[in-house]
Amino acid sequence: MKNLLLSIGLISGYLLAAPVQADMLVEKQTFTTENFATVSGEVIPVVNVGWESYGQLNEAKDNVILITHYFSGNSHAAGKYTADDAMPGYWNSIIGPGKAIDTDKYFVISSDTLVNAFPNDPNVITTGPISINPATGEPYGLDFPVVTIRDFVNVQRELLSSLGINKLHAVAGASMGSLQAIEWAAAYPDQVERMISVIGAGAMDAWTIMALEHWARPIKADPNWNQGDYYEGVAPLEGITSTLAMITQEAMHPVIMNMQAPQQQTLPADGLASVTNNLPAVDYLFGAAASRAPLADANHLLYLVRANQLFVAGHQEDLASGLQRIKAKTLFLPASNDLLLQPYLAKQTVELLEAQGKDPIYEEIDGIWGHLDGIFSIQTKAETIKAFLAH
Amino acid sequence: MKNLLLSIGLISGYLLAAPVQADMLVEKQTFTTENFATVSGEVIPVVNVGWESYGQLNEAKDNVILITHYFSGNSHAAGKYTADDAMPGYWNSIIGPGKAIDTDKYFVISSDTLVNAFPNDPNVITTGPISINPATGEPYGLDFPVVTIRDFVNVQRELLSSLGINKLHAVAGASMGSLQAIEWAAAYPDQVERMISVIGAGAMDAWTIMALEHWARPIKADPNWNQGDYYEGVAPLEGITSTLAMITQEAMHPVIMNMQAPQQQTLPADGLASVTNNLPAVDYLFGAAASRAPLADANHLLYLVRANQLFVAGHQEDLASGLQRIKAKTLFLPASNDLLLQPYLAKQTVELLEAQGKDPIYEEIDGIWGHLDGIFSIQTKAETIKAFLAH
Repeated sequence: MKNLLLSIGLISGYLLAAPVQADMLVEKQTFTTENFATVSGEVIPVVNVGWESYGQLNEAKDNVILITHYFSGNSHAAGKYTADDAMPGYWNSIIGPGKAIDTDKYFVISSDTLVNAFPNDPNVITTGPISINPATGEPYGLDFPVVTIRDFVNVQRELLSSLGINKLHAVAGASMGSLQAIEWAAAYPDQVERMISVIGAGAMDAWTIMALEHWARPIKADPNWNQGDYYEGVAPLEGITSTLAMITQEAMHPVIMNMQAPQQQTLPADGLASVTNNLPAVDYLFGAAASRAPLADANHLLYLVRANQLFVAGHQEDLASGLQRIKAKTLFLPASNDLLLQPYLAKQTVELLEAQGKDPIYEEIDGIWGHLDGIFSIQTKAETIKAFLAH
Repeated sequence: MKNLLLSIGLISGYLLAAPVQADMLVEKQTFTTENFATVSGEVIPVVNVGWESYGQLNEAKDNVILITHYFSGNSHAAGKYTADDAMPGYWNSIIGPGKAIDTDKYFVISSDTLVNAFPNDPNVITTGPISINPATGEPYGLDFPVVTIRDFVNVQRELLSSLGINKLHAVAGASMGSLQAIEWAAAYPDQVERMISVIGAGAMDAWTIMALEHWARPIKADPNWNQGDYYEGVAPLEGITSTLAMITQEAMHPVIMNMQAPQQQTLPADGLASVTNNLPAVDYLFGAAASRAPLADANHLLYLVRANQLFVAGHQEDLASGLQRIKAKTLFLPASNDLLLQPYLAKQTVELLEAQGKDPIYEEIDGIWGHLDGIFSIQTKAETIKAFLAH
């Protein structure tokens, strides 16, 4: 259970304890912007998001690397909040002094997205359906506008602008973070010099749109969801638990899951007595998910699913047209054993870029984690990333 | 939609229309046995299952090949019920006169399992929670005993015995059918000469036990399920629809799914307006599942999930001990692109058999269907199967 909790913790924004030496201490800060106009044509009166940074902004403000987070993550990409934190940020193995993303050289900044999955996590600052709608004094619920990956990017752009930053040396992200990274490059080509897509895609295909819908169904099916209006009642924790368990399962390859989960005895008496009794492997997965569920918000999960389902880089008529806009150097790092965003997705994008005469770099991450190799095995690509950033 | 309906139809027991010439006409028959003792130690007063056969039983009754069906399939493995049926049985490409499983030589027989997923399909005859409990005159519901893959095998064994058949030239099955096939070889080693496991496994691992649980959760979460007591009320069709959609998605590789499903327009207005509006790819998948849902039974799906979750060939203390019992020649045909029962499962079983000095044959099926290559691409292994049966 402990390892799986760590895994679920990980895909919820924390990381396995790594050998600790001189971990950076970091502080969560809040960025606020007003009258934020969404892609869907609405205006959010007040947007708050959390952010962190590692390293120093130089005088020219041209040493900036933006890190964009994955579906169930947050801005805690590196370092620790206090020296005795059990775990540092999720990409601590590649972000820090002398590391692949070298904080002695670069000012590395990372922000929480809109509609973050875990708004009840004390380390997350986000704005979404759970936030108070100033017009009513109540949580927005489903009155919150649908947001897109471009909206996440636009909030980050305002954050950077507030710091006087107009250009990114690089933007890098894993999974949903990779969607934001490539969206940055396609939406604001003159502001992005390098783009690193880890376990990512240039657009959602039908299979992945459907796969994401399975994450939404358990929430919508939970009577406590109540069409999104549950903030004065009971949260739909059963639905959230199913959703989180599904995400964990799809993010982990069988090899690592079978190494961690309890092995089943032949014909366990409980399992043979009734279909309503759970098996040990099931308790292991769903127990860990249930323990994280109260930190999540059901509507936020639905909004995140939708933001991902709608994704096509650049918002042009098709992916090729969106990619046509990109001027950045690009690096794609899918994971060979990924069962969720399989390498074919990154390959398709790379082939389109190549057909446009561009020169994307493509390397696969090896590992036994599956999708989570983009987090747990990222250090195997440290040299590739370092060289790409220096080039 | 049409192709996906065919696919869902397929994994529910039918098959794509193949070039038709001299399709065998077949007839569903019913086998009844009384006081059937289950592995779980209970007794089912009356068991009815449907069965079909192709070819002629010889006088020595030693030319028998048993076909065991997959999770959402039934006994309709080959031929047609009437000449104008749209589709023949699911393995019609390899079962018939002169085909890999040659009905000019072999008497091929196939039966519906206990707790078949689609008891409301007029072509399915099965016994399970939806059946009338003679003790009460009402459907069993959750009073029906939990059954195992061994129980499926034991019903088939009684059916064969009623025909005077004591030995199988071979047993062959895909997916859940492969579990039955290997269970036959491990449970009754003196009765099975050859075993063909297609897209199969020797035992369930923790990852697959969890994956199966995701199929059960939507049903248990549907208020209409009512702890299994819904036969006088409204069936939990929402839950069943989620389950069937998940099965279809996992059985199909992204390549084939993306070829069939509607492509998404950039920023579709409906999807951008509300998270409660479905996207076209989602309507495609869930619409097809909803159209099949009334033929399924929720409790039967839960019992099938449990039968699969409990599976370990031979019911010994571990898989190796179970496999130790096998005397049959064995052939394993996993599908290279299978995302549900991936080739590592068949490989593990093959390696255990080899370590015991046995000589299993292992070949992978290539194709773009994923798990369903075990059905749709099985004809690519026709020569392998033919040679294996002749050996």
